[in-house]
Amino acid sequence: MTAGTAPSSVKPSRPTVLVLGGGFGGLGAARKLEKADVDVVVVDANDYHSFQPMLYQLATGLLDTTAVAHSLRDLFQHQQNATVHQASVSAIDLDGREVQFADMAPLKYDYLVIGLGAVVQFFGCKGAPENAFPLYTVEDALRLRSHLVARWEAADRDPALVEDGALNVVVVGGGPTGIESVGALSELYTSDFAQDYGDALAGRARLTLVEAGPELFPMFKPDIREYAQHELEERGVEIMLGERVESVEPTRVTLASGTVLPAQTLVWGAGLQANPLTESLGMKLERGNRIPVDPELRLAGHPEVFAVGDAAWITDAATGDVLPQLGSVALQAGEHAGANLARIVRGDEPKPFEYTDKGTMAAIARGAAVAQLHGGRTMKGKMAFLAWGAVHLTLLSAWEDRTKAIVDWTWGGFSHERPGRILVGDKET
Amino acid sequence: MTAGTAPSSVKPSRPTVLVLGGGFGGLGAARKLEKADVDVVVVDANDYHSFQPMLYQLATGLLDTTAVAHSLRDLFQHQQNATVHQASVSAIDLDGREVQFADMAPLKYDYLVIGLGAVVQFFGCKGAPENAFPLYTVEDALRLRSHLVARWEAADRDPALVEDGALNVVVVGGGPTGIESVGALSELYTSDFAQDYGDALAGRARLTLVEAGPELFPMFKPDIREYAQHELEERGVEIMLGERVESVEPTRVTLASGTVLPAQTLVWGAGLQANPLTESLGMKLERGNRIPVDPELRLAGHPEVFAVGDAAWITDAATGDVLPQLGSVALQAGEHAGANLARIVRGDEPKPFEYTDKGTMAAIARGAAVAQLHGGRTMKGKMAFLAWGAVHLTLLSAWEDRTKAIVDWTWGGFSHERPGRILVGDKET
Repeated sequence: MTAGTAPSSVKPSRPTVLVLGGGFGGLGAARKLEKADVDVVVVDANDYHSFQPMLYQLATGLLDTTAVAHSLRDLFQHQQNATVHQASVSAIDLDGREVQFADMAPLKYDYLVIGLGAVVQFFGCKGAPENAFPLYTVEDALRLRSHLVARWEAADRDPALVEDGALNVVVVGGGPTGIESVGALSELYTSDFAQDYGDALAGRARLTLVEAGPELFPMFKPDIREYAQHELEERGVEIMLGERVESVEPTRVTLASGTVLPAQTLVWGAGLQANPLTESLGMKLERGNRIPVDPELRLAGHPEVFAVGDAAWITDAATGDVLPQLGSVALQAGEHAGANLARIVRGDEPKPFEYTDKGTMAAIARGAAVAQLHGGRTMKGKMAFLAWGAVHLTLLSAWEDRTKAIVDWTWGGFSHERPGRILVGDKET
Repeated sequence: MTAGTAPSSVKPSRPTVLVLGGGFGGLGAARKLEKADVDVVVVDANDYHSFQPMLYQLATGLLDTTAVAHSLRDLFQHQQNATVHQASVSAIDLDGREVQFADMAPLKYDYLVIGLGAVVQFFGCKGAPENAFPLYTVEDALRLRSHLVARWEAADRDPALVEDGALNVVVVGGGPTGIESVGALSELYTSDFAQDYGDALAGRARLTLVEAGPELFPMFKPDIREYAQHELEERGVEIMLGERVESVEPTRVTLASGTVLPAQTLVWGAGLQANPLTESLGMKLERGNRIPVDPELRLAGHPEVFAVGDAAWITDAATGDVLPQLGSVALQAGEHAGANLARIVRGDEPKPFEYTDKGTMAAIARGAAVAQLHGGRTMKGKMAFLAWGAVHLTLLSAWEDRTKAIVDWTWGGFSHERPGRILVGDKET
């Protein structure tokens, strides 16, 4: 990292690549430019990169903040041509090649990488913006953790609150986020909270998974879908398929069918739309406000601008499929954008992006995971759990030799310690 | 822990010992009652015990929250006769033998242990309540950590803020809290922040220690005092003796001498007074609103009520000295109160409390600590640092085999990792 380079002192002698966002996409791009003859400026609204696939573990207290959030300055410590700033983008002027910030002087760029991620999409569900708990950011996860512990403490003080849904959680979405979250919650409830607060309370807590479609895990094969459903039901999770959430109030969730579930917590794992800043680009966007890119990941009419990650609408150059909003896609697309930029700067042609699908996997609970590998082979149970660990370890260590998160969790598997099970920060009562 | 015992269902068949506060004093008392024929009810405003001597390390990002805060329910997991509630005391009715809470039904008791701790005492310093950063609670430490990182990020965006004291910290108090805090800050500034933000910014940051008395560490011998001063000055800390802080504003600190220090952070390590609830007891209090107790740690006229820790005014039965507000005093007095209660319940006589002074020590920085052992022997430097580690390890493991905090820090000494150096939670701009 070029230490202490103030925004105004970026050298004009070589091109500046401005990377907006320090998620998987932005980090991948910036890292691939390490040896390019450019100045890289990475700007994120936070001073940390968050390991989003593990956020549900932060929310359920199994991992601590530092296991899923890592200082961006630290990650770029050894990259000589990179500078980091924590600032909030307010506008992107594509024609003027300048980005404005709410809290920092504007920055000019020669090349731009947009990796601004997404925000949660509530699909018009009433009360969701105020009352639902999404799981997209570290602060989302901490907020959910505090809320859960506060609800249990309140029910401990006054058990009558249980009738009012104090301990019940409704998780929306039968995809990986929803299933991993409700699985982790079932472990937290049946082992830790049952011990902390007693079976009298824990026996009255209900966990419900609501999915609008006809089945869980639509991207997986039938044997996986059945396994996931069985494993969750074994752990006391009630699964409601073909149901939509109509409205969310502080103490209850109303489904479109008219069913009312008393619950003081609703976890939203159902959908994303691109960062609202994409709307200010003045271009035609794809579904969910995602930015369409050409096969080389550039914007139409702006070959100096790349978009990657959850904010981008990326079509695989080999298969023609639109790629999903996943960390692995963001990482590969980010690295590809960085590599293409390096090619352009040294006078070579950029290459089209092809996603290497290593498979999809999800952990339901300790020792119970599912995986569908590229080519269609499926795995379930303990072996899939180990594979899940290996893949997430690889993703984590893409940035550095940092195995802390997995080690913590693996160790937690033996010792059943849950150090994050405390109420710090935004305290609720 | 008696799982799930709701407040109303405490059995009347054997005496109830109500312990107010889960700090060193309350925990010590409750633990010593493990084998007594009583029901122990521990109530704290937080659901965790905090290891206060390490808070300055949380504030400077070297330790993570879970290293200094531990779930009270977890700590009492195996104590069959103990119940834990998170609730805020609103009034203590000594004559009615009942405690009222802001958020829970009242609790009757047969015996009471008051271990409600202290709040910071600003001695009338103008603007301190709004602008100073005390270091007495986990939330104090997290607030200071967020504030410090936010100031550096702001100065990175706009270096002109450095003139306005953005990076400068004034630490008030030349006792252990102040010295350990400013020592840890000097390490954070010269190693981590210098690397993260560059020497151009770091070279302009000032750390100042202000002490009203004529020297640092008044409780230590002269060689220790000189060593501490030398080590801090070596690390770039400016020491101002015989100076009082007159007022604190958001960007400057004014001393009684008229000197104005531009600084956006003032850490208050200067003084404590007992929890304001002591004022509602309707009894004559000692200096700093502390509750006077008899040699057996009981209140005058209320032999069923004990007071321990920072809220108590305890006179050593052997020496006649009033004991200081220290974790080691709180722990020993708490254990003594618990042991006395066990004696009373089984029909024995309570015993007077004598404090075993194992010495006083403070860590200035890695490899630089001071210790004055019981009997007057002093140690400084690396050996004292190792001794400091050993003593704090003993205190930590008084509750369980939990060496995480020390191991983290020791490991940090080799690897210079600082995982907590991120801005999460109360974000400032």
